[in-house]
Amino acid sequence: MSNRHVVIVGAGFGGLRCARELAGTEGIDITVIDRNPYQLFAPLLYQVATAGLPEDDIAYPVRAAIPGVDFKRGEVVRIDTVAKTLRMDDGNVFHFDDLVLATGSVGTTFGVPGVAENALQMKSIPQARVIRSRLLQTYEEVEVGHLPKEALRVVVVGGGPTGVEVAGAVAELQKRMSAEFPELSKHSAVTLVEAGPRLLPSFTEKSSAHAKSELEELGVTVLVDAAVDRMYPTDVHLKSGEVLPGGTIVWAAGVAAPEQWASLGISDRANRLSVNENLQLCEGVWVVGDTASLPGPDGRPLPMIAPVAMQMGRHVAKQIKSLEVGKPLTPFAYKDKGQMATIGRRRAVVEMPNGIKLHGTIAWLTWLALHVFYLAGGRNRVSVVADWMWNYIAWGIGPRRTVID
Amino acid sequence: MSNRHVVIVGAGFGGLRCARELAGTEGIDITVIDRNPYQLFAPLLYQVATAGLPEDDIAYPVRAAIPGVDFKRGEVVRIDTVAKTLRMDDGNVFHFDDLVLATGSVGTTFGVPGVAENALQMKSIPQARVIRSRLLQTYEEVEVGHLPKEALRVVVVGGGPTGVEVAGAVAELQKRMSAEFPELSKHSAVTLVEAGPRLLPSFTEKSSAHAKSELEELGVTVLVDAAVDRMYPTDVHLKSGEVLPGGTIVWAAGVAAPEQWASLGISDRANRLSVNENLQLCEGVWVVGDTASLPGPDGRPLPMIAPVAMQMGRHVAKQIKSLEVGKPLTPFAYKDKGQMATIGRRRAVVEMPNGIKLHGTIAWLTWLALHVFYLAGGRNRVSVVADWMWNYIAWGIGPRRTVID
Repeated sequence: MSNRHVVIVGAGFGGLRCARELAGTEGIDITVIDRNPYQLFAPLLYQVATAGLPEDDIAYPVRAAIPGVDFKRGEVVRIDTVAKTLRMDDGNVFHFDDLVLATGSVGTTFGVPGVAENALQMKSIPQARVIRSRLLQTYEEVEVGHLPKEALRVVVVGGGPTGVEVAGAVAELQKRMSAEFPELSKHSAVTLVEAGPRLLPSFTEKSSAHAKSELEELGVTVLVDAAVDRMYPTDVHLKSGEVLPGGTIVWAAGVAAPEQWASLGISDRANRLSVNENLQLCEGVWVVGDTASLPGPDGRPLPMIAPVAMQMGRHVAKQIKSLEVGKPLTPFAYKDKGQMATIGRRRAVVEMPNGIKLHGTIAWLTWLALHVFYLAGGRNRVSVVADWMWNYIAWGIGPRRTVID
Repeated sequence: MSNRHVVIVGAGFGGLRCARELAGTEGIDITVIDRNPYQLFAPLLYQVATAGLPEDDIAYPVRAAIPGVDFKRGEVVRIDTVAKTLRMDDGNVFHFDDLVLATGSVGTTFGVPGVAENALQMKSIPQARVIRSRLLQTYEEVEVGHLPKEALRVVVVGGGPTGVEVAGAVAELQKRMSAEFPELSKHSAVTLVEAGPRLLPSFTEKSSAHAKSELEELGVTVLVDAAVDRMYPTDVHLKSGEVLPGGTIVWAAGVAAPEQWASLGISDRANRLSVNENLQLCEGVWVVGDTASLPGPDGRPLPMIAPVAMQMGRHVAKQIKSLEVGKPLTPFAYKDKGQMATIGRRRAVVEMPNGIKLHGTIAWLTWLALHVFYLAGGRNRVSVVADWMWNYIAWGIGPRRTVID
């Protein structure tokens, strides 16, 4: 009898965790597919976008992460869940016994006019690179008179953890740039725009208030109840009629699963595929992470965060192993690890499932420790981890990174 | 009386050293001009090209390097040494009392057919990025069959320190890539081609022989007395008739000053401008570094290396200060600091002017210490220095860097 062939599409937190758990299992062959040869450490993308970390630090080579596992770089263009085949962009066709769809999420504009054309997304390294380059380059351009001083105003849309992190980091970057461009310092500004009544809506009201006051202390203007109506190249128009000028507009207001796979099953507004409690779309097809929609204890779909993806990836690996040895499937149960967001350096909010809430420096240290040690995981990552830590710590004392083009 | 206006064109080792020495001098205003907002640490470019260091680490923001000094980013398009004016690419015109031309050097093909079209130069970060991307991407392309296996062969042309450093680093990179692409390992190769009878011609014969045997130990094929006749996209043709196939061809065989300024005075084949013993091209116009041609004690022009540029930059600053207070000029005397080249990790050759020669690990440690501490210099560089060291040390234990595009 030939081996069971498991194809995992997507080498993110969910896909790689699944591959690692399955690796070395007798009777199972694994193929991992991704368009990039690296695992993106997405929670630190905002650091690359705001010139805090070099992009190398958040890209880990997939082949090194899963030694011995077959890795194919490329795009999957078609999936046939009945014939159990998928086709790659180079024409190659793979048969699978089990498919694990772990394709993550992309930025979505929710159809707000002008967002796609004028705002910068931050879901990939190339996108983060564009933001970084824009933020730094604008100072040069304004100084020589190629751009008006208003170009130094930054607008961040979206009051979730990503928006809060970006706004805080931009404020700190602007402070450092002011040292080098003192005559421009009074023209730089950052505004964080949230459509709902408070920042970090999934956190408690106290944490929301804390995040707001911390951001304001850093110099961020926080606007809540401020929905974006439309965007122009250098202006954000709110539904209230207010107009925010901005040379750099970052859109952190929404993510969705890739539209491409939404038709494989029943999907929601964010293109997430409904799976059963076993994380199956249908027999032999599993979905994990941001692409999967599964109700949590409160009835709402589980959040699109790394811990969910990792737990799902691990669970699917176990399910496949069970099938292989003729054991029954078990429903997936999410173990809530809490949530956290950083607000600039040395400030954060952390909410743990046991009710413990941390603010300020202790929260920031917790955030750092968890990001660096827990999420990074794996062998051989000592150097990247140390590099992150060093880069992060050196931010205050070292020179800023610069425009390289 | 208005202040003396010193305009320094080029923010490299020579220009910045000059600016630092002049900064804060009463009666003198300084403007530094460069097309990039960063100082490039060129001796470590080969590390970026071979995926050893992130590019951020070898780019230091000019404004942070010379706080308080006026910096203009842009290209100088015209210099009028009689009217004492220069024009920028944005049309701005500056008057100067003293001009310090510190424009460094670029790669030159010496007119060998096909080099400009087919070989990769390594004199800027974007060029180094292209080499890095090519080296890493080729493995992906060969694996999926988009490129033939011969594409994994690398040819480095030029047996000077840069060629030796690149060839050694490529050999080490290939060793690491083989761990991730085991089935391709036997197809990768690197050949170093030198037109003269030995590597490192400016070193002693013993050091040359040492470099050759160290490179061969790393797996590099070293060809001496091998002049390039012409190049095609994937082939290097030697004058002997031998053909070397190569998917990546790196040209490290020659540098020259930018052609643009050669007509300002008497220039040599490498476009270097002859200066008098005071480093003057004419009254009020000074030339330092790679762009200047001044005979050394042996009658040959001083080498195009950072210590020469730094000493010249410092000397010109002193000359300008002397003029300002009515003191006489003094001739420039180069203090030989010796020369060094690395051959992969933990191997190097160092030759000091007192006759001391070091090979192997001790030479490598000397090389590292000098690059990190002596050349880096300046305040506030602690973090970059530590980052370099860490990155360099982590090379052996951390994962390789990856293709990000």
